[in-house]
Amino acid sequence: MSNRRSLLSGAQRASRRQRSAGPGRAPADTLGTLAAQYRPGWALPGGFYSDPELYRLDVERVWRSGWLFAAHSCELPNPGDYLTLQVDRDSLIVIRGEDGVVRGLHNVCRHRGSLICTESSGHAHRLVCPYHQWTYTSDGRLLACRGMPEDLDKSALGLRPLHAREVGGLIYISLAEQPAEFRSAENVLATATRPQGLTQAKVAKAMDYRVQANWKLVWENNRECFHCNVNHPQYIKANFDHYNADDATPRIKRELASAVQRGEAKWAAAGLAPTHQESGMTRFPDAERNIWFSANRTPLVDGYVSETMDGKQVAPLMGEYKEPDIGTLRIRTLPNFWNHSSCDHSVSTRLLPAGPQCTAIRVVWLVHADALEGRDYQLEKLLPFWQLTSEQDWEICERQQRGVNSSAYVPGPYSTYKEYNVDSFVQWYIKTIEARPRN
Amino acid sequence: MSNRRSLLSGAQRASRRQRSAGPGRAPADTLGTLAAQYRPGWALPGGFYSDPELYRLDVERVWRSGWLFAAHSCELPNPGDYLTLQVDRDSLIVIRGEDGVVRGLHNVCRHRGSLICTESSGHAHRLVCPYHQWTYTSDGRLLACRGMPEDLDKSALGLRPLHAREVGGLIYISLAEQPAEFRSAENVLATATRPQGLTQAKVAKAMDYRVQANWKLVWENNRECFHCNVNHPQYIKANFDHYNADDATPRIKRELASAVQRGEAKWAAAGLAPTHQESGMTRFPDAERNIWFSANRTPLVDGYVSETMDGKQVAPLMGEYKEPDIGTLRIRTLPNFWNHSSCDHSVSTRLLPAGPQCTAIRVVWLVHADALEGRDYQLEKLLPFWQLTSEQDWEICERQQRGVNSSAYVPGPYSTYKEYNVDSFVQWYIKTIEARPRN
Amino acid sequence: MSNRRSLLSGAQRASRRQRSAGPGRAPADTLGTLAAQYRPGWALPGGFYSDPELYRLDVERVWRSGWLFAAHSCELPNPGDYLTLQVDRDSLIVIRGEDGVVRGLHNVCRHRGSLICTESSGHAHRLVCPYHQWTYTSDGRLLACRGMPEDLDKSALGLRPLHAREVGGLIYISLAEQPAEFRSAENVLATATRPQGLTQAKVAKAMDYRVQANWKLVWENNRECFHCNVNHPQYIKANFDHYNADDATPRIKRELASAVQRGEAKWAAAGLAPTHQESGMTRFPDAERNIWFSANRTPLVDGYVSETMDGKQVAPLMGEYKEPDIGTLRIRTLPNFWNHSSCDHSVSTRLLPAGPQCTAIRVVWLVHADALEGRDYQLEKLLPFWQLTSEQDWEICERQQRGVNSSAYVPGPYSTYKEYNVDSFVQWYIKTIEARPRN
Repeated sequence: MSNRRSLLSGAQRASRRQRSAGPGRAPADTLGTLAAQYRPGWALPGGFYSDPELYRLDVERVWRSGWLFAAHSCELPNPGDYLTLQVDRDSLIVIRGEDGVVRGLHNVCRHRGSLICTESSGHAHRLVCPYHQWTYTSDGRLLACRGMPEDLDKSALGLRPLHAREVGGLIYISLAEQPAEFRSAENVLATATRPQGLTQAKVAKAMDYRVQANWKLVWENNRECFHCNVNHPQYIKANFDHYNADDATPRIKRELASAVQRGEAKWAAAGLAPTHQESGMTRFPDAERNIWFSANRTPLVDGYVSETMDGKQVAPLMGEYKEPDIGTLRIRTLPNFWNHSSCDHSVSTRLLPAGPQCTAIRVVWLVHADALEGRDYQLEKLLPFWQLTSEQDWEICERQQRGVNSSAYVPGPYSTYKEYNVDSFVQWYIKTIEARPRN
Repeated sequence: MSNRRSLLSGAQRASRRQRSAGPGRAPADTLGTLAAQYRPGWALPGGFYSDPELYRLDVERVWRSGWLFAAHSCELPNPGDYLTLQVDRDSLIVIRGEDGVVRGLHNVCRHRGSLICTESSGHAHRLVCPYHQWTYTSDGRLLACRGMPEDLDKSALGLRPLHAREVGGLIYISLAEQPAEFRSAENVLATATRPQGLTQAKVAKAMDYRVQANWKLVWENNRECFHCNVNHPQYIKANFDHYNADDATPRIKRELASAVQRGEAKWAAAGLAPTHQESGMTRFPDAERNIWFSANRTPLVDGYVSETMDGKQVAPLMGEYKEPDIGTLRIRTLPNFWNHSSCDHSVSTRLLPAGPQCTAIRVVWLVHADALEGRDYQLEKLLPFWQLTSEQDWEICERQQRGVNSSAYVPGPYSTYKEYNVDSFVQWYIKTIEARPRN
Repeated sequence: MSNRRSLLSGAQRASRRQRSAGPGRAPADTLGTLAAQYRPGWALPGGFYSDPELYRLDVERVWRSGWLFAAHSCELPNPGDYLTLQVDRDSLIVIRGEDGVVRGLHNVCRHRGSLICTESSGHAHRLVCPYHQWTYTSDGRLLACRGMPEDLDKSALGLRPLHAREVGGLIYISLAEQPAEFRSAENVLATATRPQGLTQAKVAKAMDYRVQANWKLVWENNRECFHCNVNHPQYIKANFDHYNADDATPRIKRELASAVQRGEAKWAAAGLAPTHQESGMTRFPDAERNIWFSANRTPLVDGYVSETMDGKQVAPLMGEYKEPDIGTLRIRTLPNFWNHSSCDHSVSTRLLPAGPQCTAIRVVWLVHADALEGRDYQLEKLLPFWQLTSEQDWEICERQQRGVNSSAYVPGPYSTYKEYNVDSFVQWYIKTIEARPRN
């Protein structure tokens, strides 16, 4: 009864506030106004998904502060290999130096600001600006700038650096001057990725999407499988995680327990362990403890050894695996990465913000470095499971974006059974956005 | 002489004010600044047609306050039939309930804000959100939301309702919490549409346009036939309304009087009457008396029994008509509807705002419900008259939008002979936009 | 050492300032904030190339204040010939009157603001608005407005005029109410263009581009040939101006001196003189002395008599030239025109602002009025040199725009040897933008 009263008044209060925040509101108050409308356990107010000022704050406090997944190590196997990516309006270079170390640099010449690398990837021992040929080393030092005064202090004109880390085949960067510590994440990622062998992988396929939805809607979608039953007919055949405390029937619970047990017995020999054994999704993130990274292994449904259309293995075993029945490994790091790995392939999703209502998404399929397309794997077997699941989600997100844009949108309550992780994501986000940036 | 002085100084004052309102002007003052530039009897200052803040006010005070034409009853013949429409960024559902009553609902799930109906029209006994299958009745009550806590108060989580009215085959909605009274309009619309039989009609064709012009330019174009002579060669052959007090020659006046007399004699038997008998257009709207709706019947030119290319009847008689020579019935309701009906078909135009410089327009051709395409009517005979006339107008409006965007645009004077209705529209608009919204 | 310290601190200061100018900054302070970041001798801060408020100031203080190149006289040979152009959101008409005088008019009807001329060029003795046929003379007077009250003061309702000047085959306009004096420019342009015979020319080809870069980046690119070596392989074969004080070898200096000497001897007979004899580009503009126009003649490389792919003449001699070896004539006027003329053809580039990050550019190739395509010249010989060079530059500018949009962009130092004209342009711009507009 008290629940009902607070529910009603909450919706009414939010609705009243939204209405009064009409034309003429000063942009400086955006975060304050929106944050005041937020109610824990409920969805975010609409402005969080569309307001241009709020988006600028997201870029500053999330995207220019946190650790961003940039690429896989195997995309830059040799010294001089580089790739570029775009975080909002910032173009970035990630390059492997002569010393084998991966570094990040702003892709902006210190002379007159031209982009330096114009391709999405390439190979170069020197970074040469195409405008006036200012020439930088792969660690960003200005080597040559013909035509400039002799006494120019080149040491002050290097490419502005990013922080970069490489761990277990994954490359992370940070645009912050003083980024948060990476060590805790590094430990988790190193341990989780080792048996998967991401360092001995290769890219079988990459697909790029521009999804017309705010990046947070994409994450919220990722943080629950409440929507899976109807929207992901392929995914639910292979997985248990759409069953939650409230709807995992005794039979399902038995099947899951049996799968876990089977896994435990077999995987122990290989030094693996099922780290997520309950119904429902593993809990992530955790705003209280500042947990923005996690990895876990969980069983697949009986008959499935890979997240493929029929559950069959579609490529050679990766990494240290000796047999296909090793469940799935799942990794996620906020604000922009998740990965589902089966015994034979690994699928990474990278998000990058491209506007208040646009997210640039790259989905990459990895297989063993020695696998040969046509001989060892066929793309038509490898791709459909995650291509379908991904595109189903992008469509959901775009539909939701159109809805939360409505003046009639009022945040609704999250299910404590099924949307605990969405709630956790929102709490993590609110804490992150309200914190002053570190630099 | 005093006329000249005031004319000059008016233009100069407006020009001076526009120039001072350069970069740095606070958006909150937009309406005040623009309204101060407005001079009765003259066109609106340019900002009314392009300023994003002013557009937000239009949406709030016109589009979310007034009664909007949504659709024809015959588009939703059966319980469960629905259609969607978009008013600025608000997606709406109009649906006929099990009880036969038409209702309007915001197309936004109360859970996490997804759009519910994604098609432009369809049939459904329950409205089911595609994201997590929250399920609503056709009157918006939340029936089911599996996975949510048992004690959730579903009664507080129905789809947010719109007001809706159905009269004489026309469906109106209002997004206001407490809309203006509809009764007066209802009486006029019921009386006017009865002989036309819009309740026993069917849609022969619908055409959708996105016109790159502010919605007010579209209305101003509609409110005068001063532009018809040169721009609408088809329209002026059939109609008298481009002749005004100043240019209706004695011959034209005789022809009009004769047509009216002929109509009076014949139509009386059918209970019809020519309600507009003078040269020029019937007066509409009336800001003073708050008249935002009207209907009238007026003769066609001798030899025309229908607004078609050659004036010939092109489809079976509609409604209660016993013979084709019944002139034309015209209906218009602000802010978004007008209709021209001949004996054999009826053409409705619906405007919806889609941005400061964009109007989404749907033109719908209706014929008798029993008429069969190919047998009883051919689209190539039915469509051209109003397709040409409409598209000629859209081109005019887009050309005017580009002109009023100029920094050199200065509002000009309206013709008291020919643009009295444009002036009336502008006065109605100014009164509406300056009034505080009702909710 | 002091150099290094100031360089470091300069970059750091700029970087700090940019960072603090985040969300919530009042738009009114835009120019002040950006100007405070500007450091003479260094590139402009990023906001100058993308901030919408700053762009509005550019439009007001540069584009609506200065003299703009509009067209060539030969594009409007006869009374009644007109063309239209668009300066930001202002549509303009340039028309040759019955008296042979070229005039400029705002292309906005004084009645309800419609565009009057909708084609890019045409011929008309009266300017008739397509909406209600208000009719203007070619000098903008309102002649007729049927349907308006008899006592309307037509003299107050003429098309708003622009200032226009025609000199040596070039037509200039100004949107300012009281434009800067044109006489000094007129003298220079008249003298420079006379031998080239631009008044007896015809347009062989015009190409239109929409370059996704701020107009200032396009000028900065034009003001140095530091970038030519790598980016313009065709251009550098024909010209000396990519050699500057620091890299013109003794051999190059000898070649240039020899070319100048050869020119002096021959051209003297024709009343021509090489007015630029040093290595490097002629100095332009000059903010101190308010020099926004200039013209000079300079030798081509030995073996080149025309700026063509192989240096050969490709069309009949223009103007007063008696032989092909007359070097190149170069003209430029800020903010929107430059021209390179060879003995046989003349290439004009016109810039118009179309948004903070968009410039509408027209490149026009002129030949002698009597030259006949196919017989006297082939487009495939005439066009490539400047089409390639132009498009190479547009690509550079778009790449630079993307770079200066980065949050990591920090203005760099200009080369005193090679970028003195870029520095001069920036100083001219800063002086122009900081000055209060004249009207």
